[in-house]
Amino acid sequence: MNISMVFYLLGKVLLYEGILLGLPLAVSLGYREFASTQAFLLTILLCIGGGLLLSLKKPKKNVFYLKEGLVITSLSWIVISIMGSLPFLVTGAITNPIDALFETVSGFTTTGASILSNVEVLPKSILFWRSFTNWIGGMGVLVFLLVLTPLKGGSHTNLMKAESPGPQVEKLVPKTQSTAAILYGIYIALTLLQIVFLWLGKMPLFDAVNAAMSTAGTGGFGIKNTSMADYSPYIQMVVSVFMILFGVNFTFYFLLLCRKFKRALIMEEVRWYFVVILCACTIITWNIMPLYRGIGEAFRHALFQVGSVITTTGFSTDDFNLWPQVSKTILVLLMFVGACAGSTGGGIKISRFVTLFKTVRKETSNLLHPSRVGKLSNDGKSVPHEVVRAINVFMVAYILIFSASVLLISFDNLDLVTNFTAVTATLNNIGPGLEQVGPLGNYSVFSAGSKLVLIFDMLAGRLELFPILLLFVRETWRKF
Amino acid sequence: MNISMVFYLLGKVLLYEGILLGLPLAVSLGYREFASTQAFLLTILLCIGGGLLLSLKKPKKNVFYLKEGLVITSLSWIVISIMGSLPFLVTGAITNPIDALFETVSGFTTTGASILSNVEVLPKSILFWRSFTNWIGGMGVLVFLLVLTPLKGGSHTNLMKAESPGPQVEKLVPKTQSTAAILYGIYIALTLLQIVFLWLGKMPLFDAVNAAMSTAGTGGFGIKNTSMADYSPYIQMVVSVFMILFGVNFTFYFLLLCRKFKRALIMEEVRWYFVVILCACTIITWNIMPLYRGIGEAFRHALFQVGSVITTTGFSTDDFNLWPQVSKTILVLLMFVGACAGSTGGGIKISRFVTLFKTVRKETSNLLHPSRVGKLSNDGKSVPHEVVRAINVFMVAYILIFSASVLLISFDNLDLVTNFTAVTATLNNIGPGLEQVGPLGNYSVFSAGSKLVLIFDMLAGRLELFPILLLFVRETWRKF
Repeated sequence: MNISMVFYLLGKVLLYEGILLGLPLAVSLGYREFASTQAFLLTILLCIGGGLLLSLKKPKKNVFYLKEGLVITSLSWIVISIMGSLPFLVTGAITNPIDALFETVSGFTTTGASILSNVEVLPKSILFWRSFTNWIGGMGVLVFLLVLTPLKGGSHTNLMKAESPGPQVEKLVPKTQSTAAILYGIYIALTLLQIVFLWLGKMPLFDAVNAAMSTAGTGGFGIKNTSMADYSPYIQMVVSVFMILFGVNFTFYFLLLCRKFKRALIMEEVRWYFVVILCACTIITWNIMPLYRGIGEAFRHALFQVGSVITTTGFSTDDFNLWPQVSKTILVLLMFVGACAGSTGGGIKISRFVTLFKTVRKETSNLLHPSRVGKLSNDGKSVPHEVVRAINVFMVAYILIFSASVLLISFDNLDLVTNFTAVTATLNNIGPGLEQVGPLGNYSVFSAGSKLVLIFDMLAGRLELFPILLLFVRETWRKF
Repeated sequence: MNISMVFYLLGKVLLYEGILLGLPLAVSLGYREFASTQAFLLTILLCIGGGLLLSLKKPKKNVFYLKEGLVITSLSWIVISIMGSLPFLVTGAITNPIDALFETVSGFTTTGASILSNVEVLPKSILFWRSFTNWIGGMGVLVFLLVLTPLKGGSHTNLMKAESPGPQVEKLVPKTQSTAAILYGIYIALTLLQIVFLWLGKMPLFDAVNAAMSTAGTGGFGIKNTSMADYSPYIQMVVSVFMILFGVNFTFYFLLLCRKFKRALIMEEVRWYFVVILCACTIITWNIMPLYRGIGEAFRHALFQVGSVITTTGFSTDDFNLWPQVSKTILVLLMFVGACAGSTGGGIKISRFVTLFKTVRKETSNLLHPSRVGKLSNDGKSVPHEVVRAINVFMVAYILIFSASVLLISFDNLDLVTNFTAVTATLNNIGPGLEQVGPLGNYSVFSAGSKLVLIFDMLAGRLELFPILLLFVRETWRKF
């Protein structure tokens, strides 16, 4: 293990966090929230101080391998979450350290699950910081680092692999660093576009910026206790559309930008993503129609909730906990499906399901023609055997972590649906589940121990399991 | 497709069903239940008549392949279930054909889920037939056929593969037919042993025979409305022990019989099976202690329910629906785990989980040492790559069928826990779930459509998915 490199990059990450904290600091100054200003200043000093200390000594060996990439990624996410929870604690917005850590991990991992029952009493700069963690976490902390830090050899790729969502990392351009820069460019442009659209709908600018940041990261932290329920239908539709847009594989946008329309349109994952959304919306609209005035309103709520759940954002316009069972079941299933790989969304990802579905079809056909060698292909290219194996192992690890989590939090003796959907909503980085953790509930019902389990699930979900699992393997820490 | 062979063997299966129905016929004569006697006679005539008609023409090509084996297996199970439901319908014990089919499929697949709320009003011979379907289904209808019908070449193995539970078929002796005979021998011996033990505990002989048959098949059809709750602690303990014994891989018993104790004791699956039972019992005993008088009573109920659920039998001594959440969660997780491969139990099977767990460990270690080639081994032998792939595909197909089923039955608008555990309990061939399908509930709450979905799940679960899935592939039916 290149331990000096691990410390060096952790230092860099802390430095960047200190710089990013300048934005909420500015907000606190603008709104004259002096308690928050002090809290942000203190956190910035600690981040920059610690960051300089760690990154002072440049390591001799600049190259590192996948192992280091995975460990750095996990540790970075833990460290920035701990530091990021300080503003909540210092301002007294949240008094319990575990609660503050839960809220910050929930922010960075773009989960959007909250332990707060009343967010409207929080200072504006703290609300901004919450939404901003969603935005930072959406594209990834290390992808950000990639854009700015020069590294040698395959190091960039190894970092990118560890943090990017999806079974395969697709490089848009040969250089990983340029790929990261392009991704951030698209991300910023789409966020700004959403702010403009929301602002055109007469949403206050502060609300629009926060909503856009939470949407972009598919995080779902709201600044109102009712999430998006009290905004106008226009604003709700804009948020619906942008949630769904941020759940699309960003490669799609890159291909559009390069005017490679044909290659963009054959992306199977993106097509399936829209097919699933369309089917789910149709059934739910029909199912919830009796609850609303007409098909238009029913469709608006259906589209919003489907978009929110499949992209794992977690905003809501209504309490879907009260919807009929068919709609609730579809939403629970979509929680697992998740968005496209290479988007800011979480979940298991459409592309994994497309590949898995194909393996079942292939094996069934193999039973009929044992001598025929079936081939798996995606977007016209054959899928490497290692990718299929990685997806299978991912699914198994996912099931094991899921089961263990449900069992561990069941010691709180809450009902099965609450436990099951709490794990679903955190491991898939969604936010709200059903029953006590439904759109109108929150995670304060759980004990400290269960919150730690759910914090683990949020991190494991965002980093796609293995980087976090690796921290618990003794071998990882051997032979420094 | 060797279609004449398919018809020929279906005919044979019907003939054997007709012969087996002689046993409940005898019971009905013994208890002078004349309505039942007529019903059984009619069914026997139809079975033997149809069977002779189909098997009259001996096919010229005596050999068939895996494809035919799978199709024959699926069709056999459907046909014997339809014929087996006739006694219920003709006697009027069950009036609705779908309900009667549900009950019979539940019997043959050793699920034990019932649509009846009061079984104590049924004629004794009908009760006997219910328990007998559990017993027949436990070892397999075609394994029975194997013992009696001479076939050429690999045909026996192809039939055995299709019906045996578990990822790999282990041949005890080189000849498949002899293997099947040995398995049936052990099965009958253990059943008789249980009858003796129950009878020693002063259980009425009729009750003992029924209980032993349902236990042996890990079916769980009871002849009392309270399942096993009203029997003495001794009887409950005997049933607990035998449920657990029938969940052990039968190869273990064969090795013991051959005095190969060392080889028996290194069977990883069997060891894990007992470890899981021990851990689950310990936690549940501790968890439910406040509900009972002392640790002894708590342990007895814990052991019974754990044994019942992990072996997918489905008997109960108490309403575990009312237990604390930890115990309920453990039981729900055990429902998926299931018993050992090569036992009469259902579920995903311990051996699959052992292999899957090893793949995760191997992949995690691969991340640390990308150049090292890890190897999977089981009982000291390396696991072939095809077996791992088959297990993965099984898991994926399982998840897809599970999700689709939960969605389809959600149209009845029952609660999520009922729907989720109903599918769990049928796809894993257990019987009772939680809430409305808990130990004191039954499946009559579902609509006819949902019952058909659950019938499909029971068959798919018992035959381990692919034989049944194959019936829905258009290619299967081409080129006769």
